Amino acid sequence: MPYRSPVAELRFILDHVVPLAPVAQTDLFAEATPDTVEAILTEAGRLCDEVMAPLNREGDLHPPRLVDGAVIATPGFREAYQQIAEGGWVSVAGPVDYGGMGLPLTVAIAVNDMMAGANLSLQLNPLLTQGQIEALEHHASDALKEVYIPKLVSGEWAGTMNLTEPQAGSDVGALRARAEPLGDGTYAVTGQKIFISWGDSDLTANVCHLVLARLPDAAPGTRGISLFMVPKFIPDENGEPGEANAVKVVSLEHKMGLHGSPTCVMSFEGATGWLIGAPHKGMAAMFTMMNNARLNVGVQGIGIAEAAYQKAREYAQERVQFAPIIEHADVRRTLAEMKAELFAARSIALACAVALDMGRATGEEDWAARGALLTPVAKSFGTETGMWVADQGIQVHGGMGFIEETGAAQFWRDVRVTAIYEGTNGIQAMDLVGRKMADGGKAAFRLLQEIEDEARSARDGLPDLAGEVWQAAESLREHTEWMQGQDNADRFAGAVPYLRAFARVLGGHYHLRAALAEGGAGPRTALAAVYIRRLLPQAGASLAEAREGAAGLYALTDEDLAS
Amino acid sequence: MPYRSPVAELRFILDHVVPLAPVAQTDLFAEATPDTVEAILTEAGRLCDEVMAPLNREGDLHPPRLVDGAVIATPGFREAYQQIAEGGWVSVAGPVDYGGMGLPLTVAIAVNDMMAGANLSLQLNPLLTQGQIEALEHHASDALKEVYIPKLVSGEWAGTMNLTEPQAGSDVGALRARAEPLGDGTYAVTGQKIFISWGDSDLTANVCHLVLARLPDAAPGTRGISLFMVPKFIPDENGEPGEANAVKVVSLEHKMGLHGSPTCVMSFEGATGWLIGAPHKGMAAMFTMMNNARLNVGVQGIGIAEAAYQKAREYAQERVQFAPIIEHADVRRTLAEMKAELFAARSIALACAVALDMGRATGEEDWAARGALLTPVAKSFGTETGMWVADQGIQVHGGMGFIEETGAAQFWRDVRVTAIYEGTNGIQAMDLVGRKMADGGKAAFRLLQEIEDEARSARDGLPDLAGEVWQAAESLREHTEWMQGQDNADRFAGAVPYLRAFARVLGGHYHLRAALAEGGAGPRTALAAVYIRRLLPQAGASLAEAREGAAGLYALTDEDLAS
Repeated sequence: MPYRSPVAELRFILDHVVPLAPVAQTDLFAEATPDTVEAILTEAGRLCDEVMAPLNREGDLHPPRLVDGAVIATPGFREAYQQIAEGGWVSVAGPVDYGGMGLPLTVAIAVNDMMAGANLSLQLNPLLTQGQIEALEHHASDALKEVYIPKLVSGEWAGTMNLTEPQAGSDVGALRARAEPLGDGTYAVTGQKIFISWGDSDLTANVCHLVLARLPDAAPGTRGISLFMVPKFIPDENGEPGEANAVKVVSLEHKMGLHGSPTCVMSFEGATGWLIGAPHKGMAAMFTMMNNARLNVGVQGIGIAEAAYQKAREYAQERVQFAPIIEHADVRRTLAEMKAELFAARSIALACAVALDMGRATGEEDWAARGALLTPVAKSFGTETGMWVADQGIQVHGGMGFIEETGAAQFWRDVRVTAIYEGTNGIQAMDLVGRKMADGGKAAFRLLQEIEDEARSARDGLPDLAGEVWQAAESLREHTEWMQGQDNADRFAGAVPYLRAFARVLGGHYHLRAALAEGGAGPRTALAAVYIRRLLPQAGASLAEAREGAAGLYALTDEDLAS
Repeated sequence: MPYRSPVAELRFILDHVVPLAPVAQTDLFAEATPDTVEAILTEAGRLCDEVMAPLNREGDLHPPRLVDGAVIATPGFREAYQQIAEGGWVSVAGPVDYGGMGLPLTVAIAVNDMMAGANLSLQLNPLLTQGQIEALEHHASDALKEVYIPKLVSGEWAGTMNLTEPQAGSDVGALRARAEPLGDGTYAVTGQKIFISWGDSDLTANVCHLVLARLPDAAPGTRGISLFMVPKFIPDENGEPGEANAVKVVSLEHKMGLHGSPTCVMSFEGATGWLIGAPHKGMAAMFTMMNNARLNVGVQGIGIAEAAYQKAREYAQERVQFAPIIEHADVRRTLAEMKAELFAARSIALACAVALDMGRATGEEDWAARGALLTPVAKSFGTETGMWVADQGIQVHGGMGFIEETGAAQFWRDVRVTAIYEGTNGIQAMDLVGRKMADGGKAAFRLLQEIEDEARSARDGLPDLAGEVWQAAESLREHTEWMQGQDNADRFAGAVPYLRAFARVLGGHYHLRAALAEGGAGPRTALAAVYIRRLLPQAGASLAEAREGAAGLYALTDEDLAS
């Protein structure tokens, strides 16, 4: 029962739920015609199904090894990666000037969704490169761009992000790595970094590390952080990998999942680095990379949800206990809810991507603000959906779900990290209620208004479903208004449940659109009803939780929590 | 940061929330005085903390091995098991006539809770023996009792359950193992069984398999199943392990977690067996064993929740990002909700045990019915709480949660199976809305009436909290009434969310009692407020989901689910 890339489903959403058409009508993305998108998704889907998915369990069973200081990837990964690179899949949205396809981020997101479902560990490698390309485009000097971007776009070289240190996780400003200017325009970068995904491998001829470090005169905290390019091999005068840099892989982590992706402890020992962007402005450059990565991590969750759903559904059709278990009401409810959640999460992620594309192509601030607003929602809800669907997938398999050979367990183990990396989901929620609403929630209210308007218009055709979406949006709007008057502690105490409610309402909105697209009768409408009538009520419970604020939590002392 | 058995917490619940006092006032359990219980829990707690917990990660890293057809347990497990057996911990509730302590099941449950938190894999071995003792007590001939029960009570021998076959999981009636009478009162048992926990080991001198199989004249389905005792070594005339029986361990499963517990594929090849109970009445005998096991599996979830909570809280106090992360509102909310859920699940399990003890000691049908009603709730909610708390524990640890050395991941991997074995949580929920309400829901309505009455009485002291519990119970009562008029498909479609709502309301009830026990002010009250105001609203969402019934699910065809 192999994985099948959801090409048709992605096409449906981009045609009818979160239309790509307005993006393709911009000058910048005029080439993203329906035919091109169809061809891209079909071709990428073939690679996912035939090359990447068959290696997924290999990565779990045969993790990369650290041999004489170098990482040897899972057998087969190198050859599969070659096909990813040669197909141009590292830079679907990469800059045309440097050899990329220049397609909308939305199309890249759709491809990443399929690749994540096929093989999350392997997919993570080019994903990191994509973020690095974007950071270099925006912040690197032309000279550095010329050297690095073409090699990254072609997939000959890979990119990594080096932020975390043992004492500096969510508090990036606590990092200690330092960079000393050498007088020739380069810097000696020294420090230890942890949790570096694909910190080394034999997939590519070079590994390009973007490293956060402090210059000698740096202020404390995040205002004193600069970004450096520190390649594994220093490019020679021809731009080819030359002398080895003073970068070492100290060890590989033993993780719960995502075994096929080497998670490295890296040591920079006076390694030669080049400053990216202005001194002390490293966080801004890093955020360019992280914003791309955040949405893409949400999409990793969605890809795993797809793969886990496919496997569970197929098992439920084949496994007979009295009858095929898919006929049992409880299993059927579980599968229907899995599918409904997956659709919601995928639509939210694609809506985020469309907004970012529109923002870039039109320069309109409203689109950019919507993309920024939806990024933490897409990240958190996508990853929570990945975990929930994978968990339900285990349950559908019964005892077989707990046996590793089945593969259902691997999905859960792999996807679990997505709720943690690129900013934990708690951090995402704080971003949503904090920074993304610092303007009084303008972007949120604009979106809620659209949801309510559409629901009102839909009342003729789908009175029950539209009414419930309208009511849920209205409750969310009231809560969002209330929140504007609260202090940070109260907002943050309810941030995670608030984000959940936000995502739930958005999901209802997109399900309603899908139902309307088939005229209010058919399988899309039936799925919308599953979501809106069975799952959307959770939004109310989440808002009740969010409304409680912080005081009740601090009424429990540390000692109370320990007793 | 070692595990510490929650002796004081268990004492508090048994003193104030789910009083053990009425049990100790019965003739049968007159010895269960507060002093005795205190001594038992303290002593068991020491064994858990000092002997079992330090081996927990060993089991994960060094699973049992199959060597020459015999299972060699994780290094250290044999010695630890000796201490469990010598301390009498295999049969806290075991029959006094055969060497057991004869204490209430409630006390055994409290001990099992602590042992599960310390080392789930090892704890599972004596847990299965406890169930077997109960099955033999009720169904075996006196001759068999004399041979087996003393050895099981002392822990010299271990017991297993052999139900599942590849084609017969939840549909036990599909099993094919057969038993031929040999004319001398014994039977030749032949067949393959899968998922047999602790199917063999070197912890004990003998392993006693209770095996479901069909006699030659058996009817199809569950009415044609008989139960047999098939020992690994056939007891000789002195009752000591003699000749090896024709029982083989074919292989060990590779599981997601619970690595320290060998999960065996067993082959019975004309093995000598003895009939337990009447021919064709094996299911009844098996249910005696399974009912005990179901509650105890719920308690496994609770034990893991305790261990995972302790680890996450300690990490949150020590890990500094800006400030100790326990001071961050989102982490604090997470920890408070973990603790609140744990208290709720533990109280439900102990309430179930008290009801079963009272039923046994008084012979009153109402108590027995309450115990039967609460068993699937305790199993499902205990295991869901274990998974949820372990999952949140990973999240609190951030990146470290995904690294195996931390230990947070193991809790989740280990506990995941508890929602599956001894009847999946879906099966439990069907039991609740089906068999346990076949009498029109009498036991449920009686319990709900008590909850409402107590909430009404509490309104003077705790108006807000009591009002919300009353309202939630009232909604649950209305739904339960509605459900009596529905057919099985509609009940079953909503069974899982209904069980969740049921457990949520019960949790509110016990939190209210805890708050009242401290006079309505203090940490118990603060924790009750966290539960009642932030988590109890989920009951409404669950009931909305449950109310939807089956029709909407079958509106989606198999093809719709596959597209």
